[in-house]
Amino acid sequence: MRRFFFREYTMREQIEILRHKMEQKGIDCYIVTTTDAHNSEYVSEHDMVLEYMSGFSGSNGTFLVTKDEALLWTDGRYYIQCEKELEGSGIRMMRQGDDRDPSIEAYIASHIMPGQCIGFDGDKLTGYSVDRLLSKCRKINDDSCGRGACYGIKICYTDDLAGRIWNEDGSRPADNHGRIRTHDVKYAGKTVSEKLAMIHEKMKKLECTHFFISKLDDIMWLYNVRGEDVAYNPVAFSYAFITYISDEEKEAYFFADEECVSEETGKTLTAEGVGIKAYGSVYDFLTCYEYRGNILADEREVSVKALDIMAGRLKDGPADIRSYHMVSRVNPTTELKSIKNDTEIKWMKEYFMRDSAAMTKYLREVKKIMGCADGDDFDEVKAAKLCDSIRLETKDCFDLSFTTIAAYGANAAMMHYEATESSYSKCEKRGMLLTDCGGQYPGATTDVTRTIALGEVSGEEKRHFTLVLKGWLALMHATWIEGCTGRNLDILARQFLWNEGIDYKCGTGHGVGYCLNVHEGPQNIRWRYIEGSSEAVLYPGMIVTNEPGVYMEGRYGIRTENTMLVVKRFENDGDTYLGFENLTWVPIDEELIDYSLLDDKEKQWLKEYQNHSNEVFERAMTD
Amino acid sequence: MRRFFFREYTMREQIEILRHKMEQKGIDCYIVTTTDAHNSEYVSEHDMVLEYMSGFSGSNGTFLVTKDEALLWTDGRYYIQCEKELEGSGIRMMRQGDDRDPSIEAYIASHIMPGQCIGFDGDKLTGYSVDRLLSKCRKINDDSCGRGACYGIKICYTDDLAGRIWNEDGSRPADNHGRIRTHDVKYAGKTVSEKLAMIHEKMKKLECTHFFISKLDDIMWLYNVRGEDVAYNPVAFSYAFITYISDEEKEAYFFADEECVSEETGKTLTAEGVGIKAYGSVYDFLTCYEYRGNILADEREVSVKALDIMAGRLKDGPADIRSYHMVSRVNPTTELKSIKNDTEIKWMKEYFMRDSAAMTKYLREVKKIMGCADGDDFDEVKAAKLCDSIRLETKDCFDLSFTTIAAYGANAAMMHYEATESSYSKCEKRGMLLTDCGGQYPGATTDVTRTIALGEVSGEEKRHFTLVLKGWLALMHATWIEGCTGRNLDILARQFLWNEGIDYKCGTGHGVGYCLNVHEGPQNIRWRYIEGSSEAVLYPGMIVTNEPGVYMEGRYGIRTENTMLVVKRFENDGDTYLGFENLTWVPIDEELIDYSLLDDKEKQWLKEYQNHSNEVFERAMTD
Repeated sequence: MRRFFFREYTMREQIEILRHKMEQKGIDCYIVTTTDAHNSEYVSEHDMVLEYMSGFSGSNGTFLVTKDEALLWTDGRYYIQCEKELEGSGIRMMRQGDDRDPSIEAYIASHIMPGQCIGFDGDKLTGYSVDRLLSKCRKINDDSCGRGACYGIKICYTDDLAGRIWNEDGSRPADNHGRIRTHDVKYAGKTVSEKLAMIHEKMKKLECTHFFISKLDDIMWLYNVRGEDVAYNPVAFSYAFITYISDEEKEAYFFADEECVSEETGKTLTAEGVGIKAYGSVYDFLTCYEYRGNILADEREVSVKALDIMAGRLKDGPADIRSYHMVSRVNPTTELKSIKNDTEIKWMKEYFMRDSAAMTKYLREVKKIMGCADGDDFDEVKAAKLCDSIRLETKDCFDLSFTTIAAYGANAAMMHYEATESSYSKCEKRGMLLTDCGGQYPGATTDVTRTIALGEVSGEEKRHFTLVLKGWLALMHATWIEGCTGRNLDILARQFLWNEGIDYKCGTGHGVGYCLNVHEGPQNIRWRYIEGSSEAVLYPGMIVTNEPGVYMEGRYGIRTENTMLVVKRFENDGDTYLGFENLTWVPIDEELIDYSLLDDKEKQWLKEYQNHSNEVFERAMTD
Repeated sequence: MRRFFFREYTMREQIEILRHKMEQKGIDCYIVTTTDAHNSEYVSEHDMVLEYMSGFSGSNGTFLVTKDEALLWTDGRYYIQCEKELEGSGIRMMRQGDDRDPSIEAYIASHIMPGQCIGFDGDKLTGYSVDRLLSKCRKINDDSCGRGACYGIKICYTDDLAGRIWNEDGSRPADNHGRIRTHDVKYAGKTVSEKLAMIHEKMKKLECTHFFISKLDDIMWLYNVRGEDVAYNPVAFSYAFITYISDEEKEAYFFADEECVSEETGKTLTAEGVGIKAYGSVYDFLTCYEYRGNILADEREVSVKALDIMAGRLKDGPADIRSYHMVSRVNPTTELKSIKNDTEIKWMKEYFMRDSAAMTKYLREVKKIMGCADGDDFDEVKAAKLCDSIRLETKDCFDLSFTTIAAYGANAAMMHYEATESSYSKCEKRGMLLTDCGGQYPGATTDVTRTIALGEVSGEEKRHFTLVLKGWLALMHATWIEGCTGRNLDILARQFLWNEGIDYKCGTGHGVGYCLNVHEGPQNIRWRYIEGSSEAVLYPGMIVTNEPGVYMEGRYGIRTENTMLVVKRFENDGDTYLGFENLTWVPIDEELIDYSLLDDKEKQWLKEYQNHSNEVFERAMTD
């Protein structure tokens, strides 16, 4: 959804002001991104600098301003929306991941000359993304090496030029941070000290003495806290820094707005040996800290500014430090967080049942409404509101986990559709309604999609719904040997669609947080091979969604999505075999099934799923 | 099979001689590998230095001699065989890819000190393997960088010390090279000039002016020649070097034993603009050549010696060469060779049918023999001989593509079993016989495995045979979107076995050459994710095997293997969907099928396969 910032200047004027500032600083091209200092997927309004500068409101964009061009890269999900939002701004859209346009790295590499300077806010780009950009430039301008003055190209990242324009025009939302509360160990399952001990083990193994974390959900997990700084994501702006020399010599810091930390949380953290420091003091801290060995920091998460401060300090380190190099691997926190502990699993099962019952109730009410006169003026906005109110009435539900998608008919063919008060469709007594939604609970973050018939549907709609169902059941019932990643499994969900030449242009599943972000890594279920990218082995305790679909542009959309837990099935011959256990129990709309396409085994699986889902609903209603 | 080299010294004496030579050269540890100068999977007898030095005859080993230790690394396929062959030699076996033993890189890294020297024959290790070894040492001895004098550790690769001992003792087989003949364009489908033009295109794209190739099958493919220097692989020892500045300025060289090149082949190559140079002159050539730009050379294939010569020469190159760095990607020849052209596909279909008919005939004869008195003294050696004689009688079959495996009962549980005149099993009138074999034709290299009942079999054997069959059928009938690799498909073949906790410890499929090596990359069908390794997308025209199996140690083994062609199935919505077409048509033994485990679709698939296979046989018999 596009946010309407009041603004002093037109977009064209803003870009001219930026060019003027660039010239003063000797910057030849300037990059603005959609992310924040923590490489978050969803950001606070204060951090929406790209939207302010360009008018584009999608969640993935890179804006480049040169002396005579203004270009914005975004991916296929946003082409239509972006073209519309850029109209009249003088900014040209560039298609990311599409051969018709060069990538931003290739564009910069072929337009920048040795001696010129690339500018950006060093807080907003990760070390990895800067290295990738510079290595592209290297292929064009092969010369000496070293970040900062790489290949004769200069980079300047000390100034947030675009953000400053927004500040100066007076329209920028304040950088207010919300309350930070304790995530009770009753739900977390492990105390902060226990988690720190796990991290210390990992650090020892990786031969690192220090560990710097900027990823917000990792920090929330580690310190058993939750915040309210980003919509739907119960995270607080913060950093973490851990030193571990021995069990006697260790430190842990939580950088956050001190006034936001509740008294109880402050006491708990102090008792666990965690020092609380001001959020804004982190760079000073990194600059002045007395390092005593290797630092662990994830180049794909941590800002280039923070990485460069640490690397610079290590260079001058005392001679008795054996190795200075930065170790870059997946954050141990990301790894540990992704494998839910027994307490977390127990609560997830409980809360997912409650959430499933709420979803079932919503779907039944929609069916009832559409079956009577009320259905004559039912629409997508009403559907989403009904869904949200039922969910938010559920015990302990404190928020949604993302904006509810209620998409009728052709709108459901747009994967990221969002009805608004000013633009939505009426629901008619035919075709299908897709609802994708989820809630936040102290013991779960849920994510579920169901597509239901609102009246008559075509044979083709039923056929496609059933092909999706077959893949959904096949993945749900998969058994595999430990060591597999989502790439090994994806075809199970797609096989029946691929047989008929149908594909959905997104992954089959993503990881899900625990009272945290609805998208969480490192695991996922996707088929595509990306050279050089790493993938995560699926381990018991990990959570993934199972969401195949069919998207017929201009006609209809189908998605059936459950959230599932990876579990151990059995051991044999020294090997461990894994499978999934459903967390989501919401019945499938049988009006949409073409039973002639199901074999006996699939009919049996479906029957069991429907029965159990109905039991979950009945039980919740009688509670 | 262990080869019995006559030898002057005992193994222990040889190792002492090596240590003496190492001391003279200032070498602290010395590495001997199973490969040759071309990183071949199968090598000539002259190159079996590791077997001479250690007595180990497996195809994968790395032998390390230090001042006081002699260690030999090999993988799980060879543990039992290796232990046996090393008995009494004083050499200790190390398990490769097994946590119980350190890897060779880790072992060397933890035993070598700065200032010490690692020795090996620079012809036999690739640049990649040396870089990997040195990067491991770096983690231990962090210091300055640069190959050769890396991290304070020296490497010395100018002397083939172990080979020299073998020469001196007089028992080393001569380095005789066989005849090099033309592979007729009638079979190759493209002339050398046409192939060179394809390579020039790739070189232009990779911004390389020179291209050095040491991979034997790639060179055979490129120059439309075949040799006879390695058993079963119709390759000749050779190198190729290509320069492409423009269509007017280009060169191509074929380094081979000039007296081995047939007159016809010499004429053809000369007419195509290919210069023939002596095999032994290649390093002098690389040292003296006037390079005019980037060189393309595959670090994973080319020897460290050749790479270092080229890199050293580029360092001193003229100033107007814009970029010196080596580009290392998959050989364009490997890529182009893997996608068979229409002529090649036409011939493969033809020759695979002939080969399938021969295999069917063999299986029928075995059944007949076991059904009568002759079966009383039938054995594995007789089976293999029968199989080979029928195949070699087939029109145009000029060799086997590997040593035929005929394994009865428990022997079939060993994946690399080979019966010999001195050690084999009798075939009894019960249980199963597995035969894995293939032939060389001017228009195909075949690879097929069938498991048949020789009499009564247990319900469990039938059940396992049928689970293998189900996976084999599922993979054969897969449809997928272009972009998938073998890792996406592997689960289709394994799913029914994994459901029951059974796994086979090898890939599901490998690429196959065309009148070349029976194992050919880059494509394969495997599930395991290996960090940092690259995988190949499957494209129409590629060939892979489909060979799931069950291996019950000490009891029985089952494998059903076809060779298949990747084909385009259809296009839809801008996407291309691919599938497989069988090249192998050899009936499945229906006595081994438990029909209660097959669904209707699988029964139909099987019926179609059996019918077509029988037709292929009948047609061949009436020809």
